[in-house]
Amino acid sequence: MNALKFSIEKELEGRLGRAGILETPHGIINTPAFVAVGTKAAVKALTPEQVRSVGAEVVLANTYHLYLEPGAERVKSFGGLHKFMNWSGPIMTDSGGFQVFSLGSAYGKQVSKIARPQENYIPDESIIGNLAKVDEGGVIFKSHLDGSLHYITPEKSIEIQHNLGADIIFAFDECTSPTADFSYQQVAMERTHLWAERSLNHHHALIRENKRIDGVALFGIVQGGREESLRKRSAEFISKLGFDGFGIGGSFAKEDMETVVKWVNEILPKEKPRHLLGIGEPEDLFMGVENGVDLFDCVAPTRNGRGGTLYTSLGKVNIRNAKFRDDEGPIDKKCGCPVCSTPSVEQPPYSRAYLCHLYRAHEMLGGTLGSMHNLYFIINLVKRMRESILENTFLEFKQKFLKVYHS
Amino acid sequence: MNALKFSIEKELEGRLGRAGILETPHGIINTPAFVAVGTKAAVKALTPEQVRSVGAEVVLANTYHLYLEPGAERVKSFGGLHKFMNWSGPIMTDSGGFQVFSLGSAYGKQVSKIARPQENYIPDESIIGNLAKVDEGGVIFKSHLDGSLHYITPEKSIEIQHNLGADIIFAFDECTSPTADFSYQQVAMERTHLWAERSLNHHHALIRENKRIDGVALFGIVQGGREESLRKRSAEFISKLGFDGFGIGGSFAKEDMETVVKWVNEILPKEKPRHLLGIGEPEDLFMGVENGVDLFDCVAPTRNGRGGTLYTSLGKVNIRNAKFRDDEGPIDKKCGCPVCSTPSVEQPPYSRAYLCHLYRAHEMLGGTLGSMHNLYFIINLVKRMRESILENTFLEFKQKFLKVYHS
Repeated sequence: MNALKFSIEKELEGRLGRAGILETPHGIINTPAFVAVGTKAAVKALTPEQVRSVGAEVVLANTYHLYLEPGAERVKSFGGLHKFMNWSGPIMTDSGGFQVFSLGSAYGKQVSKIARPQENYIPDESIIGNLAKVDEGGVIFKSHLDGSLHYITPEKSIEIQHNLGADIIFAFDECTSPTADFSYQQVAMERTHLWAERSLNHHHALIRENKRIDGVALFGIVQGGREESLRKRSAEFISKLGFDGFGIGGSFAKEDMETVVKWVNEILPKEKPRHLLGIGEPEDLFMGVENGVDLFDCVAPTRNGRGGTLYTSLGKVNIRNAKFRDDEGPIDKKCGCPVCSTPSVEQPPYSRAYLCHLYRAHEMLGGTLGSMHNLYFIINLVKRMRESILENTFLEFKQKFLKVYHS
Repeated sequence: MNALKFSIEKELEGRLGRAGILETPHGIINTPAFVAVGTKAAVKALTPEQVRSVGAEVVLANTYHLYLEPGAERVKSFGGLHKFMNWSGPIMTDSGGFQVFSLGSAYGKQVSKIARPQENYIPDESIIGNLAKVDEGGVIFKSHLDGSLHYITPEKSIEIQHNLGADIIFAFDECTSPTADFSYQQVAMERTHLWAERSLNHHHALIRENKRIDGVALFGIVQGGREESLRKRSAEFISKLGFDGFGIGGSFAKEDMETVVKWVNEILPKEKPRHLLGIGEPEDLFMGVENGVDLFDCVAPTRNGRGGTLYTSLGKVNIRNAKFRDDEGPIDKKCGCPVCSTPSVEQPPYSRAYLCHLYRAHEMLGGTLGSMHNLYFIINLVKRMRESILENTFLEFKQKFLKVYHS
């Protein structure tokens, strides 16, 4: 009943990095891979064909957002996310744990704690300053849609995710702020560990109950902030619970990320896949791949794409800038995406000038083409890292790429 | 040097309607045809491939908007609109005359008139209540982008359109409000006739000057509001000037449209194509085709598509309505568009429930899919009218379609 098969094709000499193949019920993911983010069961501004055309092998949807709208049971009644959103490839769902941070402490100054849960829990309606409150039992969210209150527990998160029907799901965790102090990080980590066990138990219970043999894989999430002792304890604890793979969570200060990833991946069992959650800038992708990360996701390519910030081999550009109004060239001459390259003689690449015009004229097509380009750029960059591992040229590739990228 | 070749394949017995073929330098348009609107050199929310995939043969861009941004000379420097926007098929540009209405009297109560132009014309900077003011020489527009003032004359409109480089362009005219009285309609029509001559003269001068042999066709526009005497005088006058085809302009009250189209098309020479400007609802398309219109354009399919109002064979639906949240069916079971039909086993049709979710979740993908469906629906409807003319079944098709559509 193991839903996933993960095989390592090649390892990076003297490093933790590796190239592998992850087999899911809906197809193969060649790792390391960048996962396209489709928060609300849609990669923003793109059709599934366009997502496929930029090389995406897997999509990540968001548990909390889909629970609120259209509702997980509704998605289940449609045969699950794959059918609902017309994406036949592998799908992941995060657990909603990140929203503890994004709707909680990232909304106000700090995640405010409330009293321990009682038997018949009644959510406190006085959420002020942010939209999430954590206690030992779970998290109360105040819906950003209609202000209604929702108590999400590890069991509830797993149940929602089973209903959504992704191939890979995540344990419910508490993603803390990088500004949280040691003692809060410790409390949050202990809670995350407790929730990991509860998530796993409920996952197994649901599989038994529904006699599922098609397989859904559950990844546990390592937390612990920027603290070495906590991260190592968390990696050790989560490793031993029997998850199918691992997420590395947390909201990092940029300078902490490499050490954290190293501490964790030196401990996690190497035969299982690892996902660095919510990270996607080129330099961080190189760091992650070098240090043994197999999967990444991030909203940056599509968010930047909609805003007009486009990735190129020479760094990011703001395509709205007036200097591009007369620029006949493609976004990036070295890019092979459907926006920069020439699929046919009839269809030349889109010029920077045209894209500049679309953004300045507030045409949605700009966001679509920009997202396609950015997503291809990042997905393809990780694919090239994979190839360079297979060809023993990773470190040269990294050095060469980043030198030009930051020039 | 005739840029267009128009041949009539079949006429509707006892009516003015006909099926034809219009050959342009960038390909054939099978008429009657619905022209996709791409105001700012982009069909809103769609890539050129998607526009092609819904059956569009021709796109209409807007002279005034493109003059302001990115600028007609810039488009020219890129080799014209076809290259700039990556659309290799036929392109039309309107003249900016409609903006006299939409930015003028449609903004305030009435198009205010200013003094006759002097030799060295200095625009009056006191435009209040609307963004366009008409005089005999042309129109002063106040840019909605930056408030700058622009004096557009017939010569200027033709020059801009030559720079944009469409296959079919329009004479500069004054599109009046349906609420304008007889005497204003008469004044505006006389002005439109004067501008038609000036447009044509400048068009020929530019062709001579640039020794253009690739061909750009100029359509004259018939005005005259809802007045029979004016419409007939206008059709007669414009017919005789030597245009390559005709536009039927004006901002109609719905009940006037059929009589106006009949009055005009009984007079216009039948061997030249006729475009009913800005009209695109199903019942109006049937009326126009029956009465000898060859080309239509309208923002309705894409505007409705972005808003969630979708065309079906049973009438329009607002897909955001809660009743669609659990509807597994496609938008329209009888529709063959890429959103409703099954291009492959892997890619089932999109459900109404998924579309409902996308609109409710404010996902841009909703607007893209809705626009694709609507544009296909309207383009395909006109194609079916064409086929029914060729098969001698137009009136039965009209009756049958409208009965179900309005049921």
